[in-house]
Amino acid sequence: MVWQSPFLSPGHHTGERRVATDFSATRAMFDLPEGVIYLDGNSLGPLPKAVPERLAKVVREEWGQMLIRGWNEAGWMEMPRRIGDRVARLIGAEPGSVVMGDTLSIKVWQALSSALELVPGRRVILSDTGNFPSDLYIADGLTRSLGKGYEVKTVAPEEVAAAIDESVAVVMVTETDYRSGRRHDMAALAQLAHARGALLVWDLAHSAGAFPVHLARDGADFAVGCSYKYLNSGPGGPAFIYVAPRHQAKARPGLSGWMGHEKPFAFDLDYRPGQGIERMRVGTPPILALAALDAALDVWEGVDPEDLRKASLALQEQFIRDTEAACPELELASPRDPGIRGSQVSFRHPEGYAIMQALIAQGVIGDFRAPDILRFGFTPLYIDESDIRRATAILARVMAERLWDNPAYKTRAAVT
Amino acid sequence: MVWQSPFLSPGHHTGERRVATDFSATRAMFDLPEGVIYLDGNSLGPLPKAVPERLAKVVREEWGQMLIRGWNEAGWMEMPRRIGDRVARLIGAEPGSVVMGDTLSIKVWQALSSALELVPGRRVILSDTGNFPSDLYIADGLTRSLGKGYEVKTVAPEEVAAAIDESVAVVMVTETDYRSGRRHDMAALAQLAHARGALLVWDLAHSAGAFPVHLARDGADFAVGCSYKYLNSGPGGPAFIYVAPRHQAKARPGLSGWMGHEKPFAFDLDYRPGQGIERMRVGTPPILALAALDAALDVWEGVDPEDLRKASLALQEQFIRDTEAACPELELASPRDPGIRGSQVSFRHPEGYAIMQALIAQGVIGDFRAPDILRFGFTPLYIDESDIRRATAILARVMAERLWDNPAYKTRAAVT
Repeated sequence: MVWQSPFLSPGHHTGERRVATDFSATRAMFDLPEGVIYLDGNSLGPLPKAVPERLAKVVREEWGQMLIRGWNEAGWMEMPRRIGDRVARLIGAEPGSVVMGDTLSIKVWQALSSALELVPGRRVILSDTGNFPSDLYIADGLTRSLGKGYEVKTVAPEEVAAAIDESVAVVMVTETDYRSGRRHDMAALAQLAHARGALLVWDLAHSAGAFPVHLARDGADFAVGCSYKYLNSGPGGPAFIYVAPRHQAKARPGLSGWMGHEKPFAFDLDYRPGQGIERMRVGTPPILALAALDAALDVWEGVDPEDLRKASLALQEQFIRDTEAACPELELASPRDPGIRGSQVSFRHPEGYAIMQALIAQGVIGDFRAPDILRFGFTPLYIDESDIRRATAILARVMAERLWDNPAYKTRAAVT
Repeated sequence: MVWQSPFLSPGHHTGERRVATDFSATRAMFDLPEGVIYLDGNSLGPLPKAVPERLAKVVREEWGQMLIRGWNEAGWMEMPRRIGDRVARLIGAEPGSVVMGDTLSIKVWQALSSALELVPGRRVILSDTGNFPSDLYIADGLTRSLGKGYEVKTVAPEEVAAAIDESVAVVMVTETDYRSGRRHDMAALAQLAHARGALLVWDLAHSAGAFPVHLARDGADFAVGCSYKYLNSGPGGPAFIYVAPRHQAKARPGLSGWMGHEKPFAFDLDYRPGQGIERMRVGTPPILALAALDAALDVWEGVDPEDLRKASLALQEQFIRDTEAACPELELASPRDPGIRGSQVSFRHPEGYAIMQALIAQGVIGDFRAPDILRFGFTPLYIDESDIRRATAILARVMAERLWDNPAYKTRAAVT
């Protein structure tokens, strides 16, 4: 039940090469470097062409000319909510249920903190060992601050469902495993969590913009995500938080900053949480980063997430088939069933780090995740069949000619 | 003792007009709109000319061309710490004791949370009613999360010193009152707090870049601040946090995100705080905003904070004298003693909001703070004597001709 394939239409796990929709229009909206095949948009999306111009406008015409008046005249103050609504459409969320700001780690803290208080009497945050470490670190930090017996319990990903017992207040899972790309069935987990009296916090870091997400339909309580991966907002772009409408009036913001106040500019000494999702705002919003995100989201106008999913799976299937055929020493580290795979494909090799460096030197950019994972992200927004063909040919050469066996490729950089 | 004037050299409280140093060089580094006298840099600093070019370079050449490699090749990952060191020099902090990121409200939470744990057995956060409300809101939210008898106690600003008793774990004050510009004597408060077993969290929102700050010399334990006011980083620019070296190894990060981990890219499941100030990092750093700040800080190369202070006070004295002479119906809301005044001057009037709108319509931009405060910020970086002369002449005309008595100026905007 947990591993079903809700978004996959028949025929698409057979590996056929047909791409459902032509994405040449969105591809033309990105500024990609010459000679690079970019398979790392799951880590940092590339530059949408609209961003530099929009940023220059915000800097010169809004900040430069309006100065402080930009908060009213350029609509800066509404950006977290307005852009949140744009993201909401991509993740199946109700209007007015998503707000932008801060970083994903901060948003995880907010979601967990609020969710725990909605389930008084229970003390366990349940997560899994495939979760992104920062989510686990944040949960650990939160439970240490709270004391009172709060704790984080982690189990293997496939054991999450069975581990939801009456001690669990909140189930916190990242839908798509950052290493393997394996997906949880969030609808099934939500149903199970609710039946057992727990709430679900859902991390969409590798989901938003990667495939169709249906937060409202699938019963999410809280969700969080970042915008710098498949939403292409640039390095360190703003995060988002979703709170289901049924929880909004009761969710206490643990990080009660002035922008989440009912009337920030009354400058009252007492905190009163704002209406609805507004209360999840914290400090002064990052206008430059929000402007970049806003421009980046234009790419999505007219994109049908279902078409995107079909095209993404076609690219993945092509990549897996061609890589396995040409590079038998690489072991598939992603689920073979496309229905439980996100928008990335990972392979395992003891020399994974050096292989990735050699690949990057040849113009194929993916990334490495310790200890041995070669990770490749796919999005039809700017990647097509011919990119995959070229990438697998280069990968085959790197492996056949042992191009990775070079001391220069074995010294690890600070950031991997 | 609390109200002494540590930074004022003899003669500068007499209102003499001499400006100690020529700031025409820094003035030329800002892009100010034609016909505007900008006295609101205490709310949002204006655009440094170096920012648009730097942002364009980071966006097109780093993000656009390097893509994910920017984290290593463009030094993105080190920016929070490297730029923190640049800010450290402006606030008298030790190298390696300041890191950038998030918003001021988040940094307040981090500082308070860590400080409270360093004073076990005490439960009170002491603050004052002149503090910026968001700091109080954050403290309130934190104590509610912690439970266990933690509470926030607020007294009048002049009563803070006397209220530091053995119940107080942390004294949290904003050095410069956002409404009146009145300054606490932070060195004296630190001495008193330490003598009574408490720690001091110091908000530098209206101090950093406004006048010389000496965190190390004056015994600060924790300090926080924003960069979009006197440091001119743009709307919603990154905040900073300072942790005194003596506390760094013991300060537990309550918001334990992966960037504060000892080895973020080991992706361990357990959190181990990073070395020194690094542990106060939380999520992925906001590179575009950090780049804007980095370029904005170039303005400070060669500026002596003591010269800046002298010139700022000369401008303030000129503004007070000329305004009081021409507008007797405006009541000075800032301390008359320049030694306890930051870098702003406030006046009080029941029609303050409308008066400020009328002034803005005439090209003099200050701001309004409820219920009746007209607020004007001064920095010699881009404001000089002739600006003050023109501003006071316009203010005099607004008052004499009752230009404010216009219904269009009485409807309050969302952001004031």
